[in-house]
Amino acid sequence: MDLQGSFHVYDTTLRDGAQQEGLNLSVADKLAIARQLDGLGVGFIEGGWPGANPKDTEFFRRASEELDLRHARLAAFGATRRAGVAAADDPLVAALRDSGASVVTLVAKSHDRHVELALRTTLEENLAMVRDTVTHLREEGQTVFLDAEHFFDGYRDNRDYALEVLRTAYGAGAEVLALCDTNGGMLPGWVSDVVHDVIETTGVRVGIHCHNDTGCAVANTLAAVDAGATHVQGTINGYGERTGNADLVSVVANLELKLDKQVLPAGLLGEATRIAHAVAEVTNFPPASRQPYVGTSAFTHKAGLHASAIKVDPNLYQHMDPVGVGNDMRLLVSDMAGRASIQLKSRELGFDLTDSAEDRELVTRVTERVKAMEQEGYTFEAADASFELLLVEEAEGVRPAYFDVESWRVITETLTHARPGEEAVSEATVKLKAEDVRYVVTGEGNGPVNALDAALRTAIGQAFPEVAKFELIDYKVRIVDQGHGTDAITRVLIETSDGESSWVTVGVGHNVIEASWEALIDGLTFGLRRHHR
Amino acid sequence: MDLQGSFHVYDTTLRDGAQQEGLNLSVADKLAIARQLDGLGVGFIEGGWPGANPKDTEFFRRASEELDLRHARLAAFGATRRAGVAAADDPLVAALRDSGASVVTLVAKSHDRHVELALRTTLEENLAMVRDTVTHLREEGQTVFLDAEHFFDGYRDNRDYALEVLRTAYGAGAEVLALCDTNGGMLPGWVSDVVHDVIETTGVRVGIHCHNDTGCAVANTLAAVDAGATHVQGTINGYGERTGNADLVSVVANLELKLDKQVLPAGLLGEATRIAHAVAEVTNFPPASRQPYVGTSAFTHKAGLHASAIKVDPNLYQHMDPVGVGNDMRLLVSDMAGRASIQLKSRELGFDLTDSAEDRELVTRVTERVKAMEQEGYTFEAADASFELLLVEEAEGVRPAYFDVESWRVITETLTHARPGEEAVSEATVKLKAEDVRYVVTGEGNGPVNALDAALRTAIGQAFPEVAKFELIDYKVRIVDQGHGTDAITRVLIETSDGESSWVTVGVGHNVIEASWEALIDGLTFGLRRHHR
Repeated sequence: MDLQGSFHVYDTTLRDGAQQEGLNLSVADKLAIARQLDGLGVGFIEGGWPGANPKDTEFFRRASEELDLRHARLAAFGATRRAGVAAADDPLVAALRDSGASVVTLVAKSHDRHVELALRTTLEENLAMVRDTVTHLREEGQTVFLDAEHFFDGYRDNRDYALEVLRTAYGAGAEVLALCDTNGGMLPGWVSDVVHDVIETTGVRVGIHCHNDTGCAVANTLAAVDAGATHVQGTINGYGERTGNADLVSVVANLELKLDKQVLPAGLLGEATRIAHAVAEVTNFPPASRQPYVGTSAFTHKAGLHASAIKVDPNLYQHMDPVGVGNDMRLLVSDMAGRASIQLKSRELGFDLTDSAEDRELVTRVTERVKAMEQEGYTFEAADASFELLLVEEAEGVRPAYFDVESWRVITETLTHARPGEEAVSEATVKLKAEDVRYVVTGEGNGPVNALDAALRTAIGQAFPEVAKFELIDYKVRIVDQGHGTDAITRVLIETSDGESSWVTVGVGHNVIEASWEALIDGLTFGLRRHHR
Repeated sequence: MDLQGSFHVYDTTLRDGAQQEGLNLSVADKLAIARQLDGLGVGFIEGGWPGANPKDTEFFRRASEELDLRHARLAAFGATRRAGVAAADDPLVAALRDSGASVVTLVAKSHDRHVELALRTTLEENLAMVRDTVTHLREEGQTVFLDAEHFFDGYRDNRDYALEVLRTAYGAGAEVLALCDTNGGMLPGWVSDVVHDVIETTGVRVGIHCHNDTGCAVANTLAAVDAGATHVQGTINGYGERTGNADLVSVVANLELKLDKQVLPAGLLGEATRIAHAVAEVTNFPPASRQPYVGTSAFTHKAGLHASAIKVDPNLYQHMDPVGVGNDMRLLVSDMAGRASIQLKSRELGFDLTDSAEDRELVTRVTERVKAMEQEGYTFEAADASFELLLVEEAEGVRPAYFDVESWRVITETLTHARPGEEAVSEATVKLKAEDVRYVVTGEGNGPVNALDAALRTAIGQAFPEVAKFELIDYKVRIVDQGHGTDAITRVLIETSDGESSWVTVGVGHNVIEASWEALIDGLTFGLRRHHR
């Protein structure tokens, strides 16, 4: 099936998504994201604006050499020719023609006020700019899509002119006319009415590009498809300026799983969660836990009420099987959860608690301890390993321990007359006993936690060589009690790996170093326990 | 106008919102949030489940004593009587009756499979439970709303039974029948069809309760209102289990600003941004910057293309005046921004750059330096004060400086044989010169940054007494380069206040302490410069 011909899934993460506040993508980042998008099976990847932005020019140059795309075609984004200049003489148009991308997406003004106030030209010249640029690029062998900027606002102010822009581009050979809700103020009913009218009046192939300013970007996109649009634009994780663009994964998942419309190559939607998170790694934005379909919380259950019913039938409490988007059902340990949740969670971790009086008492003790610790700022929802240590401690009466810490100290200092940009150095000293031997070890690091981790693993590694395989792979700090400046309570989550699997531990305290220390100790203890069982 | 009679805005942040992963509210938190919700003018605040949860029982007890609500009525949430027990004899029903709330919202099963598998009773007994409980509470003088749980799934599997549950509750005196998309899998068109059918078939007053699992909670809620629902449920900031509930502010803003339907007391929607952020302070969840209407990015512009047009007319690039929801337009300094953005930003900060050759060169230098520093991990989007120092440095050829640091050192250590829970202590020593006097000062703190801040301010305060008024009011750490464990690059944002205003500075480095130090220095320097001009 030629999916590109039948229905377009068009990703604009690398161009419009990159407009998001705080998002800065290097060329290497863009290439990495393009590979992920191709893995999801999108039909088109808009890579940026070659000629206008050196980074984007470089992206297209490297993309044609380095990217081996299986599913997607690259699209270069750019504007129609400048007023009063022939398309063939406009260097920005030439940059589009020469980018190496097989599609050019031209952005054109379709709102009369924008033509006059932002573009500062006449309505007639704007039409000529659209006609000439599309014609020139078609003559040069390019596939051309048009982004009709501010289309919905323009349609409202001057329907005839907005439609004339579409007709002009279509007449000159543009294949898709993407209607852009650039300012994002539309609601689904309005989008539906406009798309219906455009298709009925002009007969063009309609695409849709929505922003989330009313919280309706996904619904607006679906409304346009329902009205006849056959090309949807969006971004991974909904990245984009202001409130973001339509989240492409939500759009595609709704089309495929709710509306039975296959728009990606079969089976690839099951990669969505992995890919959404992989892209978040590249952008350095923590994934939104509540994100539809792919969020870590999207199929997560907390309420005690639900937990007992989930034992009976998980499908009673989820709108679809999370496997369809590569996600998982999760159960949380929390102070709202009753005994049922603690029991289920324990079972998930491999502790089969019976209905014996002893096990029931154990569940009570664990539930109470979790509640008390969550009051202090701990969370076990993300820290399964710390929860398991707590469970074992309550079950066996003593916390698993493979070493006994006597004391630790960490010093961070600068060079004399340090200037901004010169890094400080950290040095940690740890004194501990393991297997009856006392170790006094000093470690260095880029930062205090790094230095502590180094000292700790050097000391313990002498008693337990398997520690050499352990690696600290993620470190997260969160101020739990915001608003008290550096005096606040901080919570540290540490993820440790042994190369085969990984586990998360938690530490809490006024002192960020002490909280980190606690999570480090738990991380090593959990890993050692796993290897010693 | 009796807004409660004409259209209900019903908030369930304190009950359904509190099911969100990671969200734990104390009774004091709940009271604080209730005050904020009342300030927004919602008609109903669902406070929790008295009797089932001791914290919620306590909330209702204290609410009746401490809360002086101007707009909202409190609603107590709870289940219909247990199977086989008279409503008057069920202690949980009694707790609802006696909570002091003027409305009881009863949750009832309306999906036949849930009655059989989760509730484990017969379809007939479930109807009797609904009838008896509503009747009993009405006889006791309560206003009763019904939450028809899993209504949309139930309607699909067994329409007749789902409708019969509504008719039964309505016949017994329930005023509103809220249809719940409990599993969140609906799309707007489906919601619209079902609500139309329910109203046409049964004639009951319909409410709507949506979750965001398809990314359509807001659109689904609007679709229900369009189909005749006159009661909308949602939560502040969209808090809730899994992907969250419908964001009540987006729903209300769309109804009022897009659909001209006044649903809050006049003028109160203008408080929405402040209130959404104030609630986020209580919940300790950082506000989502991309949140529709109230997000800090919701009216923020970054692209150079836009920035130049914004000079002409801001309304060309926003879907509404942000004042309507108490938000603001913002312009960002970023590596995607061209000279136009830097110029506009400088003007915003009070530097009126002309078109002289000298000023144009200055803008070029600043733009290039910002680009280079953002490559290293800096961000100036949130750190106006650091940007201003950079601008002044480039304009005057030298960075503002009121003191000269010779060196610093910070030690964090534990007591001998520290146990988890025992806090470590930090001690910092700073050597610096200010006003030609050398200071060597040691400060203590709960953590290393706290200790450095204390030492620094003690030293500088001797030369500049105004520093005594400065206070570090917020401290944020972010791992910029996630995935390298403790070796990652961290970015620190520090907010400093002088009691009248506050400013944000940034520091970056492999060492979190060094990054914090840089932001501390900038924070003090910026404050001193403001007082010395």
